[in-house]
Amino acid sequence: MTERPPERPVARAPRGFIDRRARDVAAERAILAAVSGVYERWGFEALETGAFEYADALGKFLPDADRPNEGVFALTDDDDQWMALRYDLTAPLARFAAQNWDGLPKPFRRYAYGPVWRNEKPGPGRFREFVQCDADTVGSDRPEADAEIIAMAVEGLEAAGLPAGAAVIKINNRKLLNGLMSAIGVESEVQKLAVLRAVDKLDRLGPEGVRLLLGEGRKDESGDFTKGAGLSPAGAERVLAFTRAGAGDRDATLAALAEVVGGSSEGDAGLAELAAINAALNGLGVAADRAAFDPSVVRGLEYYTGAVFEAELLLSAVDDGGQPMRFGSIGGGGRYDDLVARFTGARTPATGFSFGVSRLAAALRAAGRSAAVEPRGPIVVIAFSQDRMADYFTLAREIRAAGIAAEVYLGGSGMKAQMKYADRRLSPAAVIIGDDELAAGTVTVKDLDLGRALAAQVSDNAAWRAERPGQQTIPRADLVPALKRILEAR
Amino acid sequence: MTERPPERPVARAPRGFIDRRARDVAAERAILAAVSGVYERWGFEALETGAFEYADALGKFLPDADRPNEGVFALTDDDDQWMALRYDLTAPLARFAAQNWDGLPKPFRRYAYGPVWRNEKPGPGRFREFVQCDADTVGSDRPEADAEIIAMAVEGLEAAGLPAGAAVIKINNRKLLNGLMSAIGVESEVQKLAVLRAVDKLDRLGPEGVRLLLGEGRKDESGDFTKGAGLSPAGAERVLAFTRAGAGDRDATLAALAEVVGGSSEGDAGLAELAAINAALNGLGVAADRAAFDPSVVRGLEYYTGAVFEAELLLSAVDDGGQPMRFGSIGGGGRYDDLVARFTGARTPATGFSFGVSRLAAALRAAGRSAAVEPRGPIVVIAFSQDRMADYFTLAREIRAAGIAAEVYLGGSGMKAQMKYADRRLSPAAVIIGDDELAAGTVTVKDLDLGRALAAQVSDNAAWRAERPGQQTIPRADLVPALKRILEAR
Repeated sequence: MTERPPERPVARAPRGFIDRRARDVAAERAILAAVSGVYERWGFEALETGAFEYADALGKFLPDADRPNEGVFALTDDDDQWMALRYDLTAPLARFAAQNWDGLPKPFRRYAYGPVWRNEKPGPGRFREFVQCDADTVGSDRPEADAEIIAMAVEGLEAAGLPAGAAVIKINNRKLLNGLMSAIGVESEVQKLAVLRAVDKLDRLGPEGVRLLLGEGRKDESGDFTKGAGLSPAGAERVLAFTRAGAGDRDATLAALAEVVGGSSEGDAGLAELAAINAALNGLGVAADRAAFDPSVVRGLEYYTGAVFEAELLLSAVDDGGQPMRFGSIGGGGRYDDLVARFTGARTPATGFSFGVSRLAAALRAAGRSAAVEPRGPIVVIAFSQDRMADYFTLAREIRAAGIAAEVYLGGSGMKAQMKYADRRLSPAAVIIGDDELAAGTVTVKDLDLGRALAAQVSDNAAWRAERPGQQTIPRADLVPALKRILEAR
Repeated sequence: MTERPPERPVARAPRGFIDRRARDVAAERAILAAVSGVYERWGFEALETGAFEYADALGKFLPDADRPNEGVFALTDDDDQWMALRYDLTAPLARFAAQNWDGLPKPFRRYAYGPVWRNEKPGPGRFREFVQCDADTVGSDRPEADAEIIAMAVEGLEAAGLPAGAAVIKINNRKLLNGLMSAIGVESEVQKLAVLRAVDKLDRLGPEGVRLLLGEGRKDESGDFTKGAGLSPAGAERVLAFTRAGAGDRDATLAALAEVVGGSSEGDAGLAELAAINAALNGLGVAADRAAFDPSVVRGLEYYTGAVFEAELLLSAVDDGGQPMRFGSIGGGGRYDDLVARFTGARTPATGFSFGVSRLAAALRAAGRSAAVEPRGPIVVIAFSQDRMADYFTLAREIRAAGIAAEVYLGGSGMKAQMKYADRRLSPAAVIIGDDELAAGTVTVKDLDLGRALAAQVSDNAAWRAERPGQQTIPRADLVPALKRILEAR
């Protein structure tokens, strides 16, 4: 009998979790640095909370004993309290604000970024861990606090690399929707939800389809019948007029909305808030091409209490198959006046905006607008002889002292494999310092960028090649200038 | 009967987890940016893996069904596989390297930073989530790879803000310890461990105490007897000579070690590795005041297979009670040649260094060497009238456009409370633009830095005060220059 080999675990990341290499890491870091700079200039301070919150503090996803992992990653602590990894950055902020309210400046403006975790079924492009970046103002009920968040988000997204006009923030207000409902006599939550679901399908079904869904119902191509919201023809028409009110600039939308929902107390309150947001956005120089009123935005209704925002990417790109890609929503937010009160019992108005960092990075990359430059490897110092390792290290140190990334080859392979390694690392150049060079005070530089360009037939320009010889032996004192020429030539 | 009030959760962070405000966040970010810059210049690429690993991939802490949370935060995925939050950054690297080995340049150099989680009893200064920063080279068995890691760590710690000489990396090699054991005839693991435990107490007990522990045993002050390792007097003397070998510079230590452990095959191998590390460190210009050989370092013996390093802070500081603080170890590392083989079965040499980012930040702060400047609040534009909010926003925008952080007060309070708010925010100045100023094209600037300085009696210099009036009304065009003067004066 042969002996059974020892069991070895399979090396694999858990489902829905990914490893990110240098290029992706650099792109996300560039976004976060740019956005942090903007948010701090607007007076928002950085805050980092821990990965875990007690489940009762997270609220919504409170686990039960039988199935603790409903939507979140939860476990019991050794004192039997349930803890869960944060699923967003808003719930930890609400907990922090409630815990420290007396000691905070009011209003309290903070921004935060970091991973959040959702225990959901992973799929293509759908991860269980991703990075969000949030900014919130806690303790101001002024609509201008909403406007500030919107204008700052516009500036942040542009600083992150989005060309001007490549994103628009669409603004609505829950109070307008409530005003509309009361204007058309909708009172039950069930009917209200049916109306909102119908409005949410405007993109897909167009006004005629939505009109049917607002009334008796609609039969689709397959013959399936969807029961409608049961509005009268006049009521349905009023809802459609409401959705059309966003067609013009912000002033025109305000005027059109006043026609539809003015008169109801909630509608008037929503109109007054939008008017104040409009004035503040005007003062901040944010035009309607970047922040528009759009009454058809139906977002997070169980959570928001006033203004709601949705950031939509207008970038165009094609996927690998040449098909146009739509990026759609990259983030959003709004006013949530009840989250802190869950802890304190005291109503604490708050408003914020959140966007997906990995999502923005992916969109920027697809559109060729990534803020991070293509990665370059270090200069590789070729290692010939064990006896000379200290000399190779001294040379690498000289190159680094000039601010250029450099390393000594530390594998066990010969010259050819070392060159292949340097090429795989995307090194701009390899530097060779053998016994002859050491004795003569010279180094040999091999221009790997040139080699790659020739291999890719990017250039067959003989003159250029003559000017940038693939390999040259030069005095050691000329090494750093020669490397700088190669680095700048790309 | 009165109605029971609704149950409200208590706002509190889970035990062992902390919230970090702007100052701490800025200090950690400054460290990470500086160290990342150094590591990239040495040719190490950034890598980010997910927070979770499968428990079998983490190895050591493999949970059993009854008590899954032994040392790690673990839970079962919906396909019944155990996952756990990473407890360090080495185990995920080993998994990543094994999973992607064929596609990686070899050797593979990577650095990483991020939170790690330990399910341990929290205590003062002892957290269950903290940030580590690691650099590792996978696929090189050359001692020069160890030397590179050590020299890079020295440069990284200095870039992070440690003054030159404020940290020393102590280097040992497990093979020397093994060589010593075989030279004195120690073969059983139990006796070996007893010797190592005795050596580890050198700091506390001094050579005479350790000599007793190496021999028959030692009775402490309370009369408790600790059984010794049972070495002969000659054997104990040889072990003590080994620990004394680190007294001189690296060359002297190598010579002294050759006397003690030379001749055994493992001892000779360890000596040859240290000699190669020494030559590489010399080539890199790293002297013994920054990287010393110290045979008394006994670190992570179940894990490392060759060189081991320990970074010790030599910073001095006093705590709040005026007592001197010792920071001690801030990180360490070494060679671990077996971790990747757990997955692949193929021996894959690796070496790395890890340090605690929060720990370093705390030490730098205590020693007054924090890289991050003291936080300053934004300029606060005072809000008098709802009708003028757009004007206030325009003014704040003008200030931000000059690169100065600014915000409009968005609370609901009057002038006095707004000034108090600005002071609490550590704002350098408040800007007032009432109807008179708007009509006249002026603004009023209140210098809050000055007010704080006077309040703290930092200065009662009348001339300075005359030069920097606490409050002045100036043409709007002069606002940005006036704010810059205030900002630069601090």
